[in-house]
Amino acid sequence: MAMQVPAGNLLQDIYYPSDLKKLTEDQLEQVCQELRQYIIDIVSVNGGHFAASLGVVELTVALQYILNTPYDQLVWDVGHQAYGHKILTGRRDQFHTNRLYKGISGFPKRSESIYDAFGVGHSSTSISVALGMAVASQYKGETDRQHVAVIGDGAMTAGIAFEALNHAGIENSNLLVILNDNNMAIDPNVGALKEYLTDITTSKPYNRFRDDIAHVLNKLSAIGPDAFKIAKKIEKSIKGTLLKRSNFFEALQFRYFGPIDGHDVKHLVKVLNDLRDIPGPKLLHCVTTKGKGYALAEKDQTKWHAPGLFDKITGEIKKTKHEKPQPPKYQDVFGHTIIELAEQNPKIMGITPAMPSGCSLNLMMKAMPNRAFDVGIAEQHAVTFSAGLATQGLIPFCNIYSSFMQRAYDQVIHDVAIQKLNVVFCLDRAGIAGADGPTHHGAYDLAYMRCIPNMIVSAPMNEEELRNLMYTAQQDDMGPFSIRYPRGNGVMVDWQRPMKAIPVGKGRKICDGEELAILSIGAIGNEVVKATTALNAEGYNPAHYDLRFVKPLDEALLHDVFSKFNKVITVEDGCIEGGMGSAVLEFMADNNYHSQVIRMGIPDRYIEHGEQPELWAEAGYDANSIAEKVKSVVEKRNTHTIAS
Amino acid sequence: MAMQVPAGNLLQDIYYPSDLKKLTEDQLEQVCQELRQYIIDIVSVNGGHFAASLGVVELTVALQYILNTPYDQLVWDVGHQAYGHKILTGRRDQFHTNRLYKGISGFPKRSESIYDAFGVGHSSTSISVALGMAVASQYKGETDRQHVAVIGDGAMTAGIAFEALNHAGIENSNLLVILNDNNMAIDPNVGALKEYLTDITTSKPYNRFRDDIAHVLNKLSAIGPDAFKIAKKIEKSIKGTLLKRSNFFEALQFRYFGPIDGHDVKHLVKVLNDLRDIPGPKLLHCVTTKGKGYALAEKDQTKWHAPGLFDKITGEIKKTKHEKPQPPKYQDVFGHTIIELAEQNPKIMGITPAMPSGCSLNLMMKAMPNRAFDVGIAEQHAVTFSAGLATQGLIPFCNIYSSFMQRAYDQVIHDVAIQKLNVVFCLDRAGIAGADGPTHHGAYDLAYMRCIPNMIVSAPMNEEELRNLMYTAQQDDMGPFSIRYPRGNGVMVDWQRPMKAIPVGKGRKICDGEELAILSIGAIGNEVVKATTALNAEGYNPAHYDLRFVKPLDEALLHDVFSKFNKVITVEDGCIEGGMGSAVLEFMADNNYHSQVIRMGIPDRYIEHGEQPELWAEAGYDANSIAEKVKSVVEKRNTHTIAS
Repeated sequence: MAMQVPAGNLLQDIYYPSDLKKLTEDQLEQVCQELRQYIIDIVSVNGGHFAASLGVVELTVALQYILNTPYDQLVWDVGHQAYGHKILTGRRDQFHTNRLYKGISGFPKRSESIYDAFGVGHSSTSISVALGMAVASQYKGETDRQHVAVIGDGAMTAGIAFEALNHAGIENSNLLVILNDNNMAIDPNVGALKEYLTDITTSKPYNRFRDDIAHVLNKLSAIGPDAFKIAKKIEKSIKGTLLKRSNFFEALQFRYFGPIDGHDVKHLVKVLNDLRDIPGPKLLHCVTTKGKGYALAEKDQTKWHAPGLFDKITGEIKKTKHEKPQPPKYQDVFGHTIIELAEQNPKIMGITPAMPSGCSLNLMMKAMPNRAFDVGIAEQHAVTFSAGLATQGLIPFCNIYSSFMQRAYDQVIHDVAIQKLNVVFCLDRAGIAGADGPTHHGAYDLAYMRCIPNMIVSAPMNEEELRNLMYTAQQDDMGPFSIRYPRGNGVMVDWQRPMKAIPVGKGRKICDGEELAILSIGAIGNEVVKATTALNAEGYNPAHYDLRFVKPLDEALLHDVFSKFNKVITVEDGCIEGGMGSAVLEFMADNNYHSQVIRMGIPDRYIEHGEQPELWAEAGYDANSIAEKVKSVVEKRNTHTIAS
Repeated sequence: MAMQVPAGNLLQDIYYPSDLKKLTEDQLEQVCQELRQYIIDIVSVNGGHFAASLGVVELTVALQYILNTPYDQLVWDVGHQAYGHKILTGRRDQFHTNRLYKGISGFPKRSESIYDAFGVGHSSTSISVALGMAVASQYKGETDRQHVAVIGDGAMTAGIAFEALNHAGIENSNLLVILNDNNMAIDPNVGALKEYLTDITTSKPYNRFRDDIAHVLNKLSAIGPDAFKIAKKIEKSIKGTLLKRSNFFEALQFRYFGPIDGHDVKHLVKVLNDLRDIPGPKLLHCVTTKGKGYALAEKDQTKWHAPGLFDKITGEIKKTKHEKPQPPKYQDVFGHTIIELAEQNPKIMGITPAMPSGCSLNLMMKAMPNRAFDVGIAEQHAVTFSAGLATQGLIPFCNIYSSFMQRAYDQVIHDVAIQKLNVVFCLDRAGIAGADGPTHHGAYDLAYMRCIPNMIVSAPMNEEELRNLMYTAQQDDMGPFSIRYPRGNGVMVDWQRPMKAIPVGKGRKICDGEELAILSIGAIGNEVVKATTALNAEGYNPAHYDLRFVKPLDEALLHDVFSKFNKVITVEDGCIEGGMGSAVLEFMADNNYHSQVIRMGIPDRYIEHGEQPELWAEAGYDANSIAEKVKSVVEKRNTHTIAS
């Protein structure tokens, strides 16, 4: 991996936007072509997000050509479309390390470059941020500064984007929102706004309509005095009520421009140049094609959102070949199991906020379209909509990535937990998420879920356990039930076993042992198994328990553990502030045990991007770190015994 | 308090909606008059929310007259306008216990009545919920069931409401959204949407415009063939592009009706009856007056949102008379202090999501209008907008109630903490909030904030400490800094003392002691002071430390405490799962101390409404409970010593 590729004739001399600005407008099309090819060349051999960046090549070039970055503030929403931006702003020669451990980030990041005006990863923050910047410039009297947010139509469905539009409309600050309308989130975009945007782009363009009306009224006026009077009346009506607020964005007091072709770089340059001088909040509606310029990506945009490595000529996506069957991804275990359960239990419904392919609910959406819903990038609504379903006796499985669930925290408490409604929260991507980095690590969910009364907090150690927890959760009257599981593959090839209910709050012993017990929660328990296996070979013999539930805790199991063991290590793929280990400490204090407890998990700092095993090692709780810790504690005691 | 009042002639026989339905339409105006009077009578002597319920009297009566509740699902957004609803649905005779300890809740609550379709308190959830209900009915084939969400224009600015509209627009389920447009949140509503709504209600009504256009086109057609052709062209243009999506809500595929007068009960009955038969998502825009029928409340709607007790004849709001000066509310300490600081430090900005009078930022908005912002009910945007300001070197103080901050949890992590931006979070109403009950208790913030890397988590014990923490937070390069403080009054009359910086992570000793140490965080420390004072009189001598910071912890102080004391009690006005006490346990485990630690704070269940002291007592950490606990622990040890 980490392969460098050559840049084209013009691109090879562009290190910074200042180099781009030396070119003539006529050269920009070639720059776009070379930039697009560079992205194809480099992503095909190094991996990463793909289709989104191809879709904004022209926009990226035009913006850097016109704007005076980094003085002007350019905010990319989500940021997986910002590869071109990174390449044009000083990071072309590092770009082959994109998303690799110790390499550059796959998202804009303030600490990486002054050209990255704001760090992103989660969607829909850009308008709020750019408005904050614009208001700050206004306050400081920096009236020449430009503030631009580039946001997709998918991201526009999230509530915070609307909150920002609503505020921006009444601030008279210099804000340009560029709506990058490609009809897609990762999966096809959904919702009424998307259909509206399609409407105004595919039917007669809005601005042309205005021109037409003016033209027609002129003709009408020429007919005679009666017609003239009527024409005036129509004009007044239209101008008075309808026209000035007839567009969704104009209703929110934005000046609306477009739709324009987002792949015509020369026209973009002209329009962006014109817009510099128009004060107040304004929105430029650009129609783009996700995956533009790579035919296969244009055709299947979800597949090519982040395809992994591929042969850029044939389009064949490279897959590691395995001689033996491999364990499935946890998301697919979820996707298949919810259908299996829903076939038996008519109360089950499935909900995802814009991650059908990411969480594999797309399987259920296909199999049972009236029972599975993609509600758009809208985590808050996903949870409260689920609560509404639950009031009617249904049992919704609301699948949201752990880090995205932070968006719906109030809804979990206020709309589900207080009322003890039967909503099952499936938290995919819990724990260290990998190459997406700190914005996507699901670090906090055990801490922020376990403080909520009524909430059951569970995590399966493997595929069979995930299935059993899902089976358990769909029983009647369970109340709010959360199940967290990680990104990536499980550990069982033979995972489609019959399901059975697990008593709520019941852990299990993985292996007996002496002197020291390890308590783990979730799939990281498999690292513990590796550690204990290695330790056994070296003559150490720690016990290992899988708690399964952080809430309620298995008190019988813990009484047993603390009665037998003076040394306990807790291991979790989550923050150690307030997490499972902390819950164990609370149990210990409440029950007057005084064992030595060492908590292993995500430390109190941000873990950057990389492969999960690299990051578990860095954070100090991979199998090797666990084994070393056990040895050091046991040795310490021996040393201590000898010394005293 | 808790005074019963007589109901009017018709109202006295209405216990349930079935009684209301026995009346003729002509009698409904009188019912409205009596219901309004009943609310005035009872709130004036018992307190509670006031103006909001007066504004929806006619809507409440019309809805219960037309709908078949509780089979039909009626969801009140926020719920402080639902007093009329409660009175008409079986709770008239309990209504005088509204918001009192052990009395009925000030908000709709599922456990209180089958007529309360959904529990509320926080705003803007109703559309999501009602959509979930409507989709469930559709799935179950209950096609005759109605689903109605009543939502204010203030609540409509929050992102979740938009997310719900966006989803509802593409579901063909039976959903009626009633927009209760009174131009107000608690303070005057702000934002572009509000101005849009004002526009379409004050200028030529939208539907009349459509009629006009049709009329004009007819006249035009009569002029001659040329004019006819042009008329057709105009009609086609308007119908094709503009008209079918020319309204904000129609852009989102809702059928829009209105605006209509929300105080004309007979017309409301007719319209609601007509709407029953129209399928799909629809929005009825009702214009109402908050405080309707009580002149003073109509005139000053913010003051009369929840005025406390008042003389209903003179309108004089009753205030407890004090002979001596009283300590201020914490919110006012914030409100005055931010101005004092901002006068010295030009970097300081103030942000509130729709709580200017609730958090007293209204003082700064008046004094420094270009530096203080009410962004509407939009907690997510408030935080990310603050982040945007901070990128430009400013130091925003973003004031959000503790329980509302749950709405912006992701933004705190993703937009502020990961990037270590200088945003100061002032969490008002932290801890037990009082009469608003479990939706409003700020129970979780210590737990959900302290797991975030880079975040400073602090809480002042009194007014002087709040000022000093604010002074500390506005210094350069502090990074994310949270300060939590409770609802209500402080403890210092002489609070406007010169400010000074506190070293971050430095606690303080309140009193020396023996045998046992109490560690407290925040204003609940004053209950500890009461407890230790009482205990001293009885010969007990516990030490007391105010931690000030939950993150970073004062490690020197804690080493000192755990070296000296075998017994430690932690006291916090927050959840004990993962809270300050839990942080202390983590310190203890990490440093191999083995003292007995008892955590006192909000237990793992929902605490209902009542006065703060009543609820502290119920939750077991008022001064008396703390003193009892100290005695029991110390006695226990003595017993134990004797027994062994």
